[in-house]
Amino acid sequence: MSNQPACNRPDLPWAGRGTNLDISGCRFSLYPMHSDFVRIILGALEKTDTSNVWSQSDALSTVYRGKLPYVNDAVYGLFANAYEDGVHIVLEGLFSKGCPGDSDGDSFLAATGTPPNRAKVNGDFPVQAKIELYPLGDGEYIDSIAEAVHEATRQGLNPQSIHYATRISGTATKIFDYLQYVCQTMQDAATHYVLHFTLSVNSPTAE
Amino acid sequence: MSNQPACNRPDLPWAGRGTNLDISGCRFSLYPMHSDFVRIILGALEKTDTSNVWSQSDALSTVYRGKLPYVNDAVYGLFANAYEDGVHIVLEGLFSKGCPGDSDGDSFLAATGTPPNRAKVNGDFPVQAKIELYPLGDGEYIDSIAEAVHEATRQGLNPQSIHYATRISGTATKIFDYLQYVCQTMQDAATHYVLHFTLSVNSPTAE
Repeated sequence: MSNQPACNRPDLPWAGRGTNLDISGCRFSLYPMHSDFVRIILGALEKTDTSNVWSQSDALSTVYRGKLPYVNDAVYGLFANAYEDGVHIVLEGLFSKGCPGDSDGDSFLAATGTPPNRAKVNGDFPVQAKIELYPLGDGEYIDSIAEAVHEATRQGLNPQSIHYATRISGTATKIFDYLQYVCQTMQDAATHYVLHFTLSVNSPTAE
Repeated sequence: MSNQPACNRPDLPWAGRGTNLDISGCRFSLYPMHSDFVRIILGALEKTDTSNVWSQSDALSTVYRGKLPYVNDAVYGLFANAYEDGVHIVLEGLFSKGCPGDSDGDSFLAATGTPPNRAKVNGDFPVQAKIELYPLGDGEYIDSIAEAVHEATRQGLNPQSIHYATRISGTATKIFDYLQYVCQTMQDAATHYVLHFTLSVNSPTAE
């Protein structure tokens, strides 16, 4: 922790990416709309295999860092482990890579093999979601956003534009496949991106 | 609603800002960690004076649109009206202006006078918060982020850098003053910005 801006080190020369290491990250918060929220959050965190990611929690959120497939898998595991029939739960967070000055070694980059959570935890439940994609430092950013929406159509997630965001829907498995695709595409296409997401299950609101 | 990307109209020529109208917006979700969450959310929405903003809710979030001071005030009102002693509640959302193609007239721009909620609802309770600021289409975006953090220091909000975000803390009144300052500064400095925020009250997590 230091008194530095959001993206950590603006005092360093802008160099497109703060490190040559392959560090992606996800900062997320789990919100169970239930008076037993502490049990649900801690239970999900404990059940999730985080052996391939660096992890840190504070009062507002948790961050996982490492290679993208393991980060995606760990957040998938956390969300699927939190799922309970009939309990309205929301996961809010962001995936990101490429922050200028992100040179901290807070990550596990030696991991190999199959991401551990996907095969262990069922993700075949319906999710209502929205995303906001930000390619940074790029004048043509709107094209990347458009392409991400078109891909959501191709993956059958029924994207709908709303002010400041795009709604998508599908099973948890399909949503995390899509988030992984967008992150992979963006890290190849942009020096720095952030992908915000909101994933909701068991909302009582009829639409 | 249409099958268009997050920022609505990428098919239009990129023109810096989709409209000459002075439309800011906030999309937000209120998460009471309480089994009585429906009452808390609906009660807060009903108590809030939204006469100066255009409003629309769906299963995931609510959007207010209009002139910035009224949008900020309405979200302040919503958050302060939701507050209950001892109940852990989080407000997640984003303020934004300048999306290319944001030419919809979904806003109330004729409003004048003092924003109505600030004087009516007490905001003198402590808030733990984080922000993520994204100036879009701007190669020098990191400078704007750095300046926003420095301003948080000047306003006594004790900013702390964490991966992918900046923590701040203060009363709800001070936090919303700061969010207003950053939005005002960004709409003068950037063609398009998004400011994400997470505001938490009564978290049981000790730090």
